[in-house]
Amino acid sequence: MKLLVLPLFFLLVSTTASASRSSFLNPIHLLRQEYSSSEDHNNVANTTLDCVSWRLAVETNNIRNWEVIPDECQTYIGHYMLGHQYPSDCEYVAGLAYDYAKGVELVGDGKDAWVLDLDDTALSNAPYYYVDNSYWAKDYNKTEFVEWELKGEAPAVPGILDLYNKLLELEFKIVFITGKDETTLRNITEYNLKNVGYHNWEKLLLRDSTEASLTKLEYKSKKRALVVADGYRIWGNMGDQWSDLLGENPGNRTFKVPMPMFYLK
Amino acid sequence: MKLLVLPLFFLLVSTTASASRSSFLNPIHLLRQEYSSSEDHNNVANTTLDCVSWRLAVETNNIRNWEVIPDECQTYIGHYMLGHQYPSDCEYVAGLAYDYAKGVELVGDGKDAWVLDLDDTALSNAPYYYVDNSYWAKDYNKTEFVEWELKGEAPAVPGILDLYNKLLELEFKIVFITGKDETTLRNITEYNLKNVGYHNWEKLLLRDSTEASLTKLEYKSKKRALVVADGYRIWGNMGDQWSDLLGENPGNRTFKVPMPMFYLK
Repeated sequence: MKLLVLPLFFLLVSTTASASRSSFLNPIHLLRQEYSSSEDHNNVANTTLDCVSWRLAVETNNIRNWEVIPDECQTYIGHYMLGHQYPSDCEYVAGLAYDYAKGVELVGDGKDAWVLDLDDTALSNAPYYYVDNSYWAKDYNKTEFVEWELKGEAPAVPGILDLYNKLLELEFKIVFITGKDETTLRNITEYNLKNVGYHNWEKLLLRDSTEASLTKLEYKSKKRALVVADGYRIWGNMGDQWSDLLGENPGNRTFKVPMPMFYLK
Repeated sequence: MKLLVLPLFFLLVSTTASASRSSFLNPIHLLRQEYSSSEDHNNVANTTLDCVSWRLAVETNNIRNWEVIPDECQTYIGHYMLGHQYPSDCEYVAGLAYDYAKGVELVGDGKDAWVLDLDDTALSNAPYYYVDNSYWAKDYNKTEFVEWELKGEAPAVPGILDLYNKLLELEFKIVFITGKDETTLRNITEYNLKNVGYHNWEKLLLRDSTEASLTKLEYKSKKRALVVADGYRIWGNMGDQWSDLLGENPGNRTFKVPMPMFYLK
């Protein structure tokens, strides 16, 4: 058994707040403020090297089809999400994507597309998973999750809204592809996107009734195939799940946004 | 600018040494001992959240075609490699691979294959990259690297030799695929493998003169296609580079071994 003493406090200490963190709106922003002003991030966080290794293995697609964060890693993952490292990791990926996007020579025929996943790529479900004191240890529950979705209160993921605005300036066509249900969730999703600051898109593709039985990998590939068949070039493709980034027509470059809270097949 | 104070010391503190770390042989083992007994890991390591984010982005294939570790991250990466986190990360992936391998229902016709990359998957080149005080900041130099390869002194990567032995017990057929040169490096590579403890394999595939111009992704796909054409089922495929794991015939499951020191196209 390997034990680490106090690693998380130091991972969370930052001399200045990141300006772009302000894009990470309520309610996570409030949770972060509460967290930063509490003694909690100063406490000893019992974790292990293995939880750090577990998170890396999740992010590199070495662990698949997992259901919940291991019990012994829930506190560690909570600190990761509430602390500065998760926003830093997201903003870093957004920065890399922008560096790449700037170098793309767009054809300019209106078919230069950038694909963005919604859940935990453009919009954050972190507030749903947050449980006081147990840090996103909540199990996924479909009924409760749909209740959360119907509120339309998901904040933007750190860095991604800023990237989205820069992609629009570069004249990429934004194609949102989401596994959310077309019939029941389109309206609230559009409301949520606009409310957070995503005002324009070329396409917003949701899952229709004929696609209910597809795995997320199959579903995403199917939707991208439709986009390509419609003449678009997918220059960039961003998602928090590997099922967003693997499969057919993945795009010229893929960008994995970090997400250690859940796995979607 | 975000600054972290003293994060690395805590990432390196472990109450007990891992028994399996002993498989990480000389010369890295000696470097580690020297490192642990010095004050060095106690010093303030100036690093940034961005270096942690950089490493995650490397491991998730978000940064491609990079040449060298960014200057400001060389110390951080050095601590990562010399400390306990890199061995922990490698051993964790090996453990995941074994968990998966145990559940595979082998056909048992002698065609149940497991593909392993060599460089920094089965055999570690970390000693080549080590430079006193600057921690693996050395730029890759082909002539010097071949000199290192011709020594045949690469130790095993933590956890992988142990996994290899367990895969043999499960009766997988080990297929090593490496970009090393067939003509000049086969003999010393076989010597190195056996010297470290890899005594048996079904195939050891090296790059021949007709394959010199292929990218690593193309080369690895070509070799795997030959393996599959020979009737093998690739149940597992492990490598430290995404070019080992993407492309055609990736295998039923892939396992990304961590490696933040270099990128191979």
